[in-house]
Amino acid sequence: MEPGIVALLTDFGTRDAYVGVMKAVMLARFPGLRLVDLSHEIAAHDILSGAYLLYSAWDYFPAGSAFCAVVDPGVGGPRGTLMAEEGGRYLVAPDNGLVSLLDRMKRGLSVFALDTAVVVELCPPPPGRRSGSTFHGRDLFAPAAALCAAGQADRVRGPRLAPVLLPEVRPKIRPQGRGRGRLEGCIIHVDRFGNCITSLHRSDLTGPFSSGGFVVRAGTFSVQGFKATYVETEPGEALAVIGSAEFLELSVREGSAAARHGLSIGDAVWIAG
Amino acid sequence: MEPGIVALLTDFGTRDAYVGVMKAVMLARFPGLRLVDLSHEIAAHDILSGAYLLYSAWDYFPAGSAFCAVVDPGVGGPRGTLMAEEGGRYLVAPDNGLVSLLDRMKRGLSVFALDTAVVVELCPPPPGRRSGSTFHGRDLFAPAAALCAAGQADRVRGPRLAPVLLPEVRPKIRPQGRGRGRLEGCIIHVDRFGNCITSLHRSDLTGPFSSGGFVVRAGTFSVQGFKATYVETEPGEALAVIGSAEFLELSVREGSAAARHGLSIGDAVWIAG
Amino acid sequence: MEPGIVALLTDFGTRDAYVGVMKAVMLARFPGLRLVDLSHEIAAHDILSGAYLLYSAWDYFPAGSAFCAVVDPGVGGPRGTLMAEEGGRYLVAPDNGLVSLLDRMKRGLSVFALDTAVVVELCPPPPGRRSGSTFHGRDLFAPAAALCAAGQADRVRGPRLAPVLLPEVRPKIRPQGRGRGRLEGCIIHVDRFGNCITSLHRSDLTGPFSSGGFVVRAGTFSVQGFKATYVETEPGEALAVIGSAEFLELSVREGSAAARHGLSIGDAVWIAG
Repeated sequence: MEPGIVALLTDFGTRDAYVGVMKAVMLARFPGLRLVDLSHEIAAHDILSGAYLLYSAWDYFPAGSAFCAVVDPGVGGPRGTLMAEEGGRYLVAPDNGLVSLLDRMKRGLSVFALDTAVVVELCPPPPGRRSGSTFHGRDLFAPAAALCAAGQADRVRGPRLAPVLLPEVRPKIRPQGRGRGRLEGCIIHVDRFGNCITSLHRSDLTGPFSSGGFVVRAGTFSVQGFKATYVETEPGEALAVIGSAEFLELSVREGSAAARHGLSIGDAVWIAG
Repeated sequence: MEPGIVALLTDFGTRDAYVGVMKAVMLARFPGLRLVDLSHEIAAHDILSGAYLLYSAWDYFPAGSAFCAVVDPGVGGPRGTLMAEEGGRYLVAPDNGLVSLLDRMKRGLSVFALDTAVVVELCPPPPGRRSGSTFHGRDLFAPAAALCAAGQADRVRGPRLAPVLLPEVRPKIRPQGRGRGRLEGCIIHVDRFGNCITSLHRSDLTGPFSSGGFVVRAGTFSVQGFKATYVETEPGEALAVIGSAEFLELSVREGSAAARHGLSIGDAVWIAG
Repeated sequence: MEPGIVALLTDFGTRDAYVGVMKAVMLARFPGLRLVDLSHEIAAHDILSGAYLLYSAWDYFPAGSAFCAVVDPGVGGPRGTLMAEEGGRYLVAPDNGLVSLLDRMKRGLSVFALDTAVVVELCPPPPGRRSGSTFHGRDLFAPAAALCAAGQADRVRGPRLAPVLLPEVRPKIRPQGRGRGRLEGCIIHVDRFGNCITSLHRSDLTGPFSSGGFVVRAGTFSVQGFKATYVETEPGEALAVIGSAEFLELSVREGSAAARHGLSIGDAVWIAG
């Protein structure tokens, strides 16, 4: 079998060697794996952002790929670990809401406990090193993702589970209020350019919202309807667009919507007819 | 055929998953491609910097490699897209001046329109996703570069074209004033260490400038002649050197020429005998 | 032979194309090499930090891997270049203390001069480019590491040497004062999260220090004993843990020990019974 791809998403940054060591663990065991960095700059508390980046990338990876996500404010704590599967792709992650947007958008998603004891047994630390309690990325998530991308997901799949949705994730991952002429979502990611990606998906814009004849508001940001491309506006002008992952984005052409309007992850967004 | 290398140069940063998704698109279609990041930290308006980095890396990549450059202040706007070829290497990029330094330095460079309709036909989006108008890197440039590196450049090569030089690039990419005992260039890149790379190439330093007995000036920066290595000066001392891509560089040993002298991309540089 | 891995550790950052060009040099000559970034964010003067990251990653890379380390405040100066070997792994680096922690921890480490003349002869610059005096990473260290990872270490191995320990590295890489009920080390790395990794290894905690009944102090940081995991403390509380590379780490749960206590690399740390 052709070796798969492992896509990495962490809050480890790139100053330290944490990510490099995770890659070494994977390549030492499965030399043919191909490794792709999604991001290592997620803030530890930005579960929503991690959930969005996973979803935005998911469909572009071929079947057989595994996503290794370690965004984990509670490292070492009692939260569980999960593996999820959809379309032949795998995710290993802490059970803290990272899977929540995939869970919302992908009907075919199955979620299981990760059998961590088997992972550690199959991929023990190298001679002279110990499996630690402080670096689950290296000792648990990296080998688990590598096993999945190497076609051995069956070995580490535990019982089915319903993913945990933390109180700070649960009400924000799905739009609220449909049916009252008003749809409320929130900002789930702010990109490098200051574009604010919201939880409102193209598929939410039905019924009274299908015409585009609505107002989009978030704090002081307010525009009428949405545009197909940035160039339908003037430089410096605010606009809402359906972004590259098909969620509604709040933008300022050649500027930063986040900076100009003081918006950040978790802030509420409304559309109203 | 051995799979080629794709070198990526973008203004996307590494916080988001934009670059990772571009890599997924390429690997999904051509699993054997090898991917090398040049930089994702180019500021969107620093076309000169992108043009320099492409040139500085070009010759070190083997024939069959493709460069995928997406530094694009006008994304979604009416600028064209090009592919260029030299020495068996390919470049796909927006037609906004990114190719300008290669165009100046490489006599064998050929520039063509990119046949974007064919790219989209050959590499459609995955099931359930749309080819968007906001993410050309993913939907157009990544698949085009992958096709080139996979030996299929013939399929996406459009008619020959003369690359556009934007007003802010045209006068800065070639030195001016030769023949009056004075040569004027500009700063085209500032590196992490604050070294200011200029548009003055070793091959420009002929005639009255071949002896090295000239003054180099940029704002308050002023030195006599150029050195072969940093260690010919004292720590903290200013110097001009022929840098690693053979352009004249303004430096301060163990310091930052850019910070000390307030220099940035586009600033004028003179040498005079 | 299966192509090896090259792990890169530099002070080049990722804004410029320096690292990408090093990778091109390696892949152009040995297309099957796999490349892993450890870090490119080491500050040029943080030899201790580079030494720590190399050690922390070392055992996780399989035999046949080569580490290419270019953290080099004296680029172009008269410091030598070395190659080191242990457990079938290779390191090429400037002889400035980067190898010092491996030298302390790995009894089987052998250190040799790097035969730079042979490297340049085996891997000359591409047509039209010169081997420069300003970019040793591209012209010397990258090809040397690639040769080692491709099974050709024998060709570039010079005579044995004793690595240089600069005055700022020598007293800091080994704990001092054992036997007086007090052990003195120093902070050798500060990670992204503000955890301060010290030079005190698990194997130093013997005799009076084996019980854990000691005080750990560094500036205003002071705790009693060490914990196995972060969750044995409350959020915001200070703790000492044996970290992922088995060195004593000063931490604040869900906070930054470095920021709260003003700690940085080189600062003294004491434990006392």
